[in-house]
Amino acid sequence: MAKAGDDRRPKYQRIADTLREAIRSGEYGPGDRLPGENDLMAAHGVARMTARQALGVLRDEGVAEARKGAGVFVREFRPLRRRGIQRLAQQQWGNGRSVWSADIEGRSLEVDQVTVSEEGAPDGIAAVLELTGEETVCVRRRRFVLDGKPVLLATSYLPASLVAGSAITREDTGKGGTYARLAELGHKPVHFREEVRSRMPSSDEATRLSMSAGTPVILICRTAFTDEGRPVEINEMTLDAASYILEYDFDA
Amino acid sequence: MAKAGDDRRPKYQRIADTLREAIRSGEYGPGDRLPGENDLMAAHGVARMTARQALGVLRDEGVAEARKGAGVFVREFRPLRRRGIQRLAQQQWGNGRSVWSADIEGRSLEVDQVTVSEEGAPDGIAAVLELTGEETVCVRRRRFVLDGKPVLLATSYLPASLVAGSAITREDTGKGGTYARLAELGHKPVHFREEVRSRMPSSDEATRLSMSAGTPVILICRTAFTDEGRPVEINEMTLDAASYILEYDFDA
Repeated sequence: MAKAGDDRRPKYQRIADTLREAIRSGEYGPGDRLPGENDLMAAHGVARMTARQALGVLRDEGVAEARKGAGVFVREFRPLRRRGIQRLAQQQWGNGRSVWSADIEGRSLEVDQVTVSEEGAPDGIAAVLELTGEETVCVRRRRFVLDGKPVLLATSYLPASLVAGSAITREDTGKGGTYARLAELGHKPVHFREEVRSRMPSSDEATRLSMSAGTPVILICRTAFTDEGRPVEINEMTLDAASYILEYDFDA
Repeated sequence: MAKAGDDRRPKYQRIADTLREAIRSGEYGPGDRLPGENDLMAAHGVARMTARQALGVLRDEGVAEARKGAGVFVREFRPLRRRGIQRLAQQQWGNGRSVWSADIEGRSLEVDQVTVSEEGAPDGIAAVLELTGEETVCVRRRRFVLDGKPVLLATSYLPASLVAGSAITREDTGKGGTYARLAELGHKPVHFREEVRSRMPSSDEATRLSMSAGTPVILICRTAFTDEGRPVEINEMTLDAASYILEYDFDA
């Protein structure tokens, strides 16, 4: 389409376009090494700085990643497919499987950095959970690591009075997890709202998720409601966008 | 939590943390001017380069944006709330409203850069639309501009044989849009799948969406199915992530 004026774009942009097109067409596949600075200098008759800038464009876009001393490679994208609606079906957690197991398709999952504490509710959380005055929340923080790569940070907030004494206040929530325990307490979650955003990670998030440059995070804020419409849990999730495709299936 | 080791982080990171915290706490609100390099040099006793790097961190995270000659400001985030499920309800397009009007809440919407053409189907599209051999697709490209700011690029693919002669092949699809026309043709879309990803924009996408640095795009690929499960449309959307919250509501 409308490529008029393209040759007025800087040389490094045009070289980056050529490489990007070669990646899209499959000439360079996931994990392949891209031409280096010397190759680009020879092929396009440009200075080293121009070649470097061209590779930098692809790195900033998250299309390519540098590996120290080895060169620049096409980013591998083997994402988790996260089915937002099916994964929360009651037969998942109702029969003792965790919500998460709907997604991982036989890959190895570890949960680490688990902390559980009782805290004052942040303003936004208190408002959504309809907490009054000094009511506290049970806060569950954890990180999900798939095949050795951290992919998701999660922080759940539940009204402390609702979950007091249950396994939800312990590191191991038991079979079926938090939602099965909520059901036993008479607060079965049956309706969910997920809000999805994306932004660049903070340096702390990038470190905890071992993210490479040029990769955003996806934020999912999920609220779980009982059939009376009472909000019983908020789960704020931070996902490495290079590790995920979210999928939502629904009827008109 | 676990902030041990924080003072071994570079000075500019710690200054960035302080500013980020001040923004999160509301000390600096959306659109507010942040302290400049001179202010940070005086307040923290650091060199200009350190102050500049600290502001650069917030810019790269998309938390702040530079305005030429005026300083660095807290990014304004007044997103569209896009309700993935309600917006596709049949009463929306069934009564002549466009799908999009569910989202804009009285803000001014323009659609521009509209093109309609008949093309060979890209491999991935042909596979999902179950096209055989040389079947072509009707391709509808357009851009959505909200309150003067481009927010979304969309490209729809429909089997050319299915829509031949209908208003879907014209720039103006008429009341209720493409989905109302598909219904008239006996191919009412009743089931939808949305796949959501995020990555950094290409320079072309960043230009067409007038995006500032440090902002990712959200990609939504929506497939529409008839009640016999026939896929009749794929819509590939590219959204400025600074302009959107996606919302999905569903039952367990």
